[in-house]
Amino acid sequence: MDVNKASLDMHYELAGKIEVVSRKKIETRDDLSLAYTPGVAEPCRVIAKDYEQSFKLTRRSNLVAVITDGTAVLGLGDIGPAAGMPVMEGKCVLFKEFADVDAFPLCIDSKDTDTIVQTIHLISKSFGGINLEDIAAPRCFEIERRLKELCDIPVFHDDQHGTAIVVAAALINAIKVTGKEMGKIKIVINGAGAAGIAIGKLLISMGFGNVVMCDINGIICEGDEGLNAGQEEISHISNLNREHGKLADALKGADAFVGVSRPNLVTKEMVASMNNGIVFAMANPTPEIMPDEAKAGGAAVIGTGRSDFPNQINNVLVFPGIFKGALSVRAKEITETMKQRAAYAIASMIPDEELNAENIIPSPLNKGVAAVVAKAVADTAVEEGIARI
Amino acid sequence: MDVNKASLDMHYELAGKIEVVSRKKIETRDDLSLAYTPGVAEPCRVIAKDYEQSFKLTRRSNLVAVITDGTAVLGLGDIGPAAGMPVMEGKCVLFKEFADVDAFPLCIDSKDTDTIVQTIHLISKSFGGINLEDIAAPRCFEIERRLKELCDIPVFHDDQHGTAIVVAAALINAIKVTGKEMGKIKIVINGAGAAGIAIGKLLISMGFGNVVMCDINGIICEGDEGLNAGQEEISHISNLNREHGKLADALKGADAFVGVSRPNLVTKEMVASMNNGIVFAMANPTPEIMPDEAKAGGAAVIGTGRSDFPNQINNVLVFPGIFKGALSVRAKEITETMKQRAAYAIASMIPDEELNAENIIPSPLNKGVAAVVAKAVADTAVEEGIARI
Repeated sequence: MDVNKASLDMHYELAGKIEVVSRKKIETRDDLSLAYTPGVAEPCRVIAKDYEQSFKLTRRSNLVAVITDGTAVLGLGDIGPAAGMPVMEGKCVLFKEFADVDAFPLCIDSKDTDTIVQTIHLISKSFGGINLEDIAAPRCFEIERRLKELCDIPVFHDDQHGTAIVVAAALINAIKVTGKEMGKIKIVINGAGAAGIAIGKLLISMGFGNVVMCDINGIICEGDEGLNAGQEEISHISNLNREHGKLADALKGADAFVGVSRPNLVTKEMVASMNNGIVFAMANPTPEIMPDEAKAGGAAVIGTGRSDFPNQINNVLVFPGIFKGALSVRAKEITETMKQRAAYAIASMIPDEELNAENIIPSPLNKGVAAVVAKAVADTAVEEGIARI
Repeated sequence: MDVNKASLDMHYELAGKIEVVSRKKIETRDDLSLAYTPGVAEPCRVIAKDYEQSFKLTRRSNLVAVITDGTAVLGLGDIGPAAGMPVMEGKCVLFKEFADVDAFPLCIDSKDTDTIVQTIHLISKSFGGINLEDIAAPRCFEIERRLKELCDIPVFHDDQHGTAIVVAAALINAIKVTGKEMGKIKIVINGAGAAGIAIGKLLISMGFGNVVMCDINGIICEGDEGLNAGQEEISHISNLNREHGKLADALKGADAFVGVSRPNLVTKEMVASMNNGIVFAMANPTPEIMPDEAKAGGAAVIGTGRSDFPNQINNVLVFPGIFKGALSVRAKEITETMKQRAAYAIASMIPDEELNAENIIPSPLNKGVAAVVAKAVADTAVEEGIARI
C-alpha cells in the first residue's frame, strides 16, 4: 500500500474525518420548541444562575478542543493552520473512536504566544478540556502554563505529557522484564524539546532514577550556557553525576535510552555499551536505531513509534483516557499524580504472565486501555479532592 | 406541556444537543496509518502547497461556526458565553437537521469589538463559514463588517440577514395575496436594532417601496439627532417623505407593518388606519399585536414568530440553505443578490394556487426549503463569478 496516496484519496473521499451531528431529531413543532425557541431559554437561565450547570446542559460535558498553531505538525514543521488540520481531525477521530470523547479541531492563525493564549482562553468556556497539539517549543511551555492558570478546565499539551506518560508506562514494564530496579537506573533521553523534557520530568518525578538529557550538542549539564527555560529547569534535577560529553558517552552503562530526536543517531556499538539496555527509539518514521540493529547491539527490550515492530509506543494509548477521566468527574486540571497513575494503568494492561521483551505495552488499537486510564484519572481526582461531579 | 421544564429535562438528558463523531472507523493498523500517522502527512503537504485544497480535504468543506459573545441571547439579553451555549447548540442542530451542514458552537468570553473580531479571525481557517449569532447592536454591525473584510469565508450575522430574508420572502407573497404593487408600498418597521435595520435595508434594495423605520422614540428621519451608525445610514434611504411622529402616525395609510420590537405596541385602531394592512408582528413570545386583534382591526395578512398561529416567520427557513449554498460552491461571501434570490426562493415554495392570507410562507419544519435556498445561493454565486468550485 502506498500509504500517502491511499491517505490522500481517503481524505478527498471523506471531505473531513469528523462530523458534527445532532443528538435531537427535529420533526415536530414540539421538537423545535424544546431544542430551540422558546424552550431553550430555560437551560440558558439555569446556567446564567449556576455556571457549573454548563457542564451538564451543554456538550462541554464531553468535549475537548484539539488546538494547534500549525507550527510543529508531525515531522512537517511550520506548515500553518489550514495545513495542520488533517492531523487535528485525525486526533479528534482517535478521541471519539477510543474513548467516546467528542473532540473538535481548531487551528489558530498566529505565532504570537500572547495572542494564542488569549484566543484559546476566550473560547475555553465552549469546551470541557483543551488538548494542545503540535505547537513548537519553547513557546508551547509558556502557552500551556498560562492557560492552566487562566482556564477552569484541564489544559494538556499532548506532545509533552501524552508522550511522557506512554514512555513511562513502557518503561515500567521494561524494567520488570529486565529485572532492573526502580530508582536505580540511568536513563538517557535524546532530544531536549517539548517531548524530551516532559518525559524527563515525569520519569524523575516517578522515581525511575538518574535521567540524563542530551540534545544535538550532547549531554545537558546544570550550568551549561545556551539552555532554554525548559532545559535549564530540568538541568537542576537531572544528570545527577554532572556528566559531560556526547550521546555516546551518556549511553555507556546506561540502563535505558529514550529517543525523541532524529533517525539513525544511535549505533549498534552504542547499544552494546549500555547495561543490558532498554532502547525506545521513537523518532518517526525512521527511529534513532532500527530494531534489528539495536538487537544486534544486545538491547534487552526495544520499542519504537512504528506499528510494524513490536512495542509501539504511541500516545493514542494516553490522551483519550486522560480526558475521558477528567471530564467524567469535571476535574479542573490534569495533575502530576494523574499522569503517574495513568502510566501505571497503561502498564497494568499487560498481565505479568504475558510480559516479555516483545510485549511491554498494549497495542494502540486496544480499545480497552482508555477506560482503564480514565478510571485511574477519575479516581485520582476524587482522592485529590478536585473532582466536581 | 410545560415547555420550560420539558426543555430543561431534555437538556439534562442529552448533555449536549450536538455531538462530534468520526467519519472513519479505526479498527486496524491500516486505518490508523491512513487517518493518522504516517498517512495524514500527505493531505497536510497538499494543503501547505495549495491552500484551497483545505476546503476539500478537511471538514471545513461543510462546516459553519456558530459564534456569539453571549450579549443578546434570545430575549434574555447579556447572559454571558456559557449561558448562551444552549441556543448556539440549538442553532447547530437546525443547521444539521435542515441542511446537513455541520455547525459547531463557540462562545467568546469578551465584549470588546476588537478582541471579538481578532479571535474569530484567528480561528476562521478551521471553518467554511461563520454564522454570527446573538451579538448586541450596534457592536454586531462593526464585527460583521470587519470580519467580512478579514476572512476568506462567508460571514453572516443571522439576526440581521436571516431575519431580513425571511421577512422579505413573506412580504413577496403577502403582496401577491393582497394585490399590492411591488415598489409602490409603504412599509413601517418598528424596532431599529440589528434585525430592523437589516430588514429595512434588504426591503429597500429589493425595491419594495418606501420603508419607514421607527424606534422607541417614533419615526426615524434623516437628520435626527442621537441615531447610531446603523440608523443614520438607513435614514438616508428610508422615510422618503420625511415623516415625523410616532408609530401610530407612521402606520396611517401604510401597506405593511413589520415588528421586531416589543409586545403589545400596536392596537386594533392602528391596524385599522392602515391601507388593507399586512401585519408581521414578530416580537417573541408575545407579538406587537395578537393575531385576533390585528384581524379585528382589518389586517389583510397576519404573520408572527410563533408556531401556534398561521404564517410563522422564522429564520430557520433561511440560514441552513444560505450556508449550504455558499459552501457548495466555496463562495467567499454572501452577497446582496444572494439574499434577494434566497427570499424569492423561499417565497416560491408556496405555489400560487396555494397562496392565501393564512399561507404565505412555508412551515419552519419544511425540510425542502433549504435545498431550494441553497440552489438559489449557489446559482447566484456562479453568475456573480464568485464560486470557486
